[in-house]
Amino acid sequence: MHSEFDLIRRFFTHPAPGTVLGVGDDAALMRAAPGHELAVSTDMLVGGQHFFLDTDPEKLGHKALAVNLSDMAAMGARPRWALLALALPEPDEAWLSAFARGFMALAAEFHVDLVGGDTTRGPLSLCVTVLGEVPEGKALRRDGAREGDDVWVSGSVGDAALALAHLKRQAVLEPADAAWCLSRLDAPTPRVALGVALRGIAHAAIDVSDGLAADLGHILERSKVGAIVELSRLPRSAVLERLADRKLATTCMLAGGDDYELLFTAPAGVRQVIEDLGREQGLRVTRIGRVTAGAGLTVLGEDGAPMVLERTGFDHFR
Amino acid sequence: MHSEFDLIRRFFTHPAPGTVLGVGDDAALMRAAPGHELAVSTDMLVGGQHFFLDTDPEKLGHKALAVNLSDMAAMGARPRWALLALALPEPDEAWLSAFARGFMALAAEFHVDLVGGDTTRGPLSLCVTVLGEVPEGKALRRDGAREGDDVWVSGSVGDAALALAHLKRQAVLEPADAAWCLSRLDAPTPRVALGVALRGIAHAAIDVSDGLAADLGHILERSKVGAIVELSRLPRSAVLERLADRKLATTCMLAGGDDYELLFTAPAGVRQVIEDLGREQGLRVTRIGRVTAGAGLTVLGEDGAPMVLERTGFDHFR
Repeated sequence: MHSEFDLIRRFFTHPAPGTVLGVGDDAALMRAAPGHELAVSTDMLVGGQHFFLDTDPEKLGHKALAVNLSDMAAMGARPRWALLALALPEPDEAWLSAFARGFMALAAEFHVDLVGGDTTRGPLSLCVTVLGEVPEGKALRRDGAREGDDVWVSGSVGDAALALAHLKRQAVLEPADAAWCLSRLDAPTPRVALGVALRGIAHAAIDVSDGLAADLGHILERSKVGAIVELSRLPRSAVLERLADRKLATTCMLAGGDDYELLFTAPAGVRQVIEDLGREQGLRVTRIGRVTAGAGLTVLGEDGAPMVLERTGFDHFR
Repeated sequence: MHSEFDLIRRFFTHPAPGTVLGVGDDAALMRAAPGHELAVSTDMLVGGQHFFLDTDPEKLGHKALAVNLSDMAAMGARPRWALLALALPEPDEAWLSAFARGFMALAAEFHVDLVGGDTTRGPLSLCVTVLGEVPEGKALRRDGAREGDDVWVSGSVGDAALALAHLKRQAVLEPADAAWCLSRLDAPTPRVALGVALRGIAHAAIDVSDGLAADLGHILERSKVGAIVELSRLPRSAVLERLADRKLATTCMLAGGDDYELLFTAPAGVRQVIEDLGREQGLRVTRIGRVTAGAGLTVLGEDGAPMVLERTGFDHFR
C-alpha cells in the first residue's frame, strides 16, 4: 500500500509554471497579476450524493474541476490555480490514476496549475478549490441585473437533467441520444471564454448548476429585480426537442441542474455585441426573457400564460 | 428542514471587511496587498478518521480552522481569508450553530474573513481552504534548511498525542492533566505571530502535524540535508514530564502529531534574536538540534546514543 505522500507525488505533482511554489510545502505560493482581483470558490462533491459511486473516475476528475471552472466563468474570471482534497476508502491506484488523468487534462486545457492538495482515507468525496483572476471591478456578479436587461443563456439547457432521468429510467432515449446527454452530464464544458468576453458587457451572471429557474432566482434576489422568461425561447438540444414526454422536457429545462451554461443579463444596447461574441466562439447564445421591476420569476408557457413553478432547483438539504 | 441556502446564510454569513465580495456569489473576490504573494492551503477532515464523530462541534469548528491557520504560520504568511465546505448527514441546527461559533470565533481572533462555502448532505467531513499573504520572496519554505542551522521548535511537543493515548486508554492521567492535554488536542493555537516574526530569520519551517520526526523529515528531504536532534532537549509539558511510561512519552514527543507547533531551522547567528522573539511573544522556543550534511534524521536518546526510530509519523494511508 502506498503512503499518502507517495500518492500525492505520483499522481498530482505536475509542473506549475504560473506558480511560485506548488505542491509539497505547507501552502502553495502564487502571485496575482497587478490590478487584478482574485476570485475563489470551493465545491464539495460527495459520492452517492453528487455522483454515483461507480462513476468512471476519469470523467469524475474532469467534472470535479469543470464545475469549479464554471464558477470562475460565471464571475468573468480567468481560472489559474486549483487545490484538490480527496477522501478515498482505499488508496486505489487504478482509480486515482484515472481520476488524475481526467482532472489534469482539463487543468492543462485551461492552463490551470494544481498547486495543493490533501488525500485521506474516508468515504469517497472531493473538495476542489479554484482561484482565478479578474481585472479590478470587472467581475460579473449576481447583484448587477437591472430593469430592462435582456436575460441570456449559453448553449442549451436541460440535457444533463435528461441524462439523469435516463439513468433513473424515467425517460427512454435512443442509445445515441442517451450517450450525447450523458456526455453533457459527465463532461460539462466550462464557459470560461464567454465569461471573460462578457466583462464590461453583462450586468450579472451565474452558471446553471441548480437549474435555470433557481439560478435566475439567485440573480433576481441579489439584484432586487424580477424577470419574465418565455419557455418557447429556451434553447434546447435536438434530443430534448424530440422527447415525447413534454412535461419532463419542461422540467429538465427549467429545474434541471448540472448544465453549467452561463445565464446572464445585459442591456438591450449590446444585443448585437453578444450575438457576435457567440458567433466568434462557436457557442449558441439565446435571449430568453427580460428583467423587470418587482421581484420573482415569471415563466410564460408555450401558450403564453404564466406557469406555476413547482420545483425550482436542486438543493442538497431539501 | 432548512435548505442549503438558508444554512449558509444563517450560520456562516458574517461581515467580511477585508474582502471585495464575500459569501453569496459564484466566487468570492479579494485583493492581495501589493508586493505580496498569496499562500493557499487546503485540508480535509473526515469524521471517524481525523476526529471522533461525537466531537464537540464548537471545538471541531475551532480545530478545523486552526490547523489551516497553522499552515499559514508555517509559511510565515498572515492568514486573511477562509472557505469552508461541509458535508453533514443531516442539517442539524444545534450542531451547525456550535460548529460555526467555534470556527467564527477563531476567525475573528485572527481577522480572517470567511468568504465562501458549500454545505451538502453526506458523511460528516469538512474541507477548509485558507488564503494568506506574505511579502514577495519572504515565505518560510521547507526547502531552505542549510548545514549548520539550528533546529528549533515552539511550545512543547507530544501533548496532543498523549491526549489521544488517554482517550484510547493507553495512558492513565489525572483528571486535570487529561483536561490540559485534551485542550492541546482539541484547541491548538496556531503560531501565526511567530511565523510572521520569523520572516527573514528562519531558513525553513513546517508545523508539527504528522509528528516531530516525520515533519522534520519533510524539511530534510526537501532541503537535501540531514539533522541530529537530542531527545533530552525536546520541550515537554509538566504533564508529559510526569508520565511514568517513558517509552510512551518518547513516542508522543517524536511521533505524535497534532501539536501544531512550529518546527524551524535558522543560522546560529540569530539565536539571541529568536530567544528574544519567544520572550516577547510569551512562547517557549527551544533549540533541539542542528542541521548536518548528508541525509536523514538522527535522534540521540537520553543516553546520548542514536535511537532506532520505528514509527515516524501519521500517514492516513499506512
